[in-house]
Amino acid sequence: MRIMRVEKTLVSTNRIKEMGHRPLLVVRDKIGGTPSVAVDAVGCIPGDWVICVGSSAAREAAGSKEFPSDLTIVGIIDQWEEEKS
Amino acid sequence: MRIMRVEKTLVSTNRIKEMGHRPLLVVRDKIGGTPSVAVDAVGCIPGDWVICVGSSAAREAAGSKEFPSDLTIVGIIDQWEEEKS
Amino acid sequence: MRIMRVEKTLVSTNRIKEMGHRPLLVVRDKIGGTPSVAVDAVGCIPGDWVICVGSSAAREAAGSKEFPSDLTIVGIIDQWEEEKS
Amino acid sequence: MRIMRVEKTLVSTNRIKEMGHRPLLVVRDKIGGTPSVAVDAVGCIPGDWVICVGSSAAREAAGSKEFPSDLTIVGIIDQWEEEKS
Amino acid sequence: MRIMRVEKTLVSTNRIKEMGHRPLLVVRDKIGGTPSVAVDAVGCIPGDWVICVGSSAAREAAGSKEFPSDLTIVGIIDQWEEEKS
Repeated sequence: MRIMRVEKTLVSTNRIKEMGHRPLLVVRDKIGGTPSVAVDAVGCIPGDWVICVGSSAAREAAGSKEFPSDLTIVGIIDQWEEEKS
Repeated sequence: MRIMRVEKTLVSTNRIKEMGHRPLLVVRDKIGGTPSVAVDAVGCIPGDWVICVGSSAAREAAGSKEFPSDLTIVGIIDQWEEEKS
Repeated sequence: MRIMRVEKTLVSTNRIKEMGHRPLLVVRDKIGGTPSVAVDAVGCIPGDWVICVGSSAAREAAGSKEFPSDLTIVGIIDQWEEEKS
Repeated sequence: MRIMRVEKTLVSTNRIKEMGHRPLLVVRDKIGGTPSVAVDAVGCIPGDWVICVGSSAAREAAGSKEFPSDLTIVGIIDQWEEEKS
Repeated sequence: MRIMRVEKTLVSTNRIKEMGHRPLLVVRDKIGGTPSVAVDAVGCIPGDWVICVGSSAAREAAGSKEFPSDLTIVGIIDQWEEEKS
């Protein structure tokens, strides 16, 4: 799993119906890093450091084997200091 | 999921029959970035910023578990500013 | 899917029986790039620019769910200009 | 599989219920490398060099096909010298 | 699939039982490259250049769908010249 920071909600009105209305969040592994999009399965807010699961495990973590996710937030980290890189 | 920009349609006449006639699009995560090929499941046009799902989720997102995709466009982003890198 | 160029056939006499006699090709995403090995499902020749599918989709694209491939050529691109990088 | 070094336990109180109470560990492939989070299936301690399995194999290695892991520690390496890079 | 060179056997006494006693090998894509760990399904020796399959295909290539591998050696390359990089 990867450690990412939640930045903001991503609005995508035109999406495939399998995605439903689940919130999509922009996450980054560090400030200035490449943005990724994750499905939120725990309920987090911008600024949270979270654990993101990828690969095939992201589908069931998002709620069902049919959910089209390859990156799902599965936990909020209690305390994390950003690292300089 | 990754945030990509649609560049153009990719023409591939000689393809395996499992791909059918689904449109294939060249996408990039930024101008000058490495091109990838994605299956379009929403109906987008060159210039759109889109959400691409990879891993095993790309197959069902493309229409069925048997569809040979590892990158499928599942949503159009309402508004996205390209980032300098 | 990734855009790769076919370089040559790879000879591997000692292989697991599940691979059968399917041709294995050395492919690269650009001249001088890291070589990968792909299973040919369309019939291509050195110099062709092709579409390669990875992830779990590579198995069925190679002919069956049991085929041990993580990179399968699923289409030949009609026309592609190599990019300087 | 990747060779990683265990750094510490990661505390995540707010997590999806599918993760249960399995310990999550911060691992790195080298000192100063990007941190990843792995599920511990063997019982290891900070400082151990371990073998981490990713992809879909990480789920069953963590205990069941439904476990939402994409990185699971499956063995402790008897002896490993860190490499300079 | 990736082209790797076998370096040595990796000893891991404390491992999950699903791994059985299958030999684990340290492989690298080039001298000085990042080491990975692969399950040997063909019987190779240090110095061999081999074909490694990843993703979900690595599990069945290692002997069964339940085997926790994400990198399995599926063939020995008859002849390979290392590339300068």
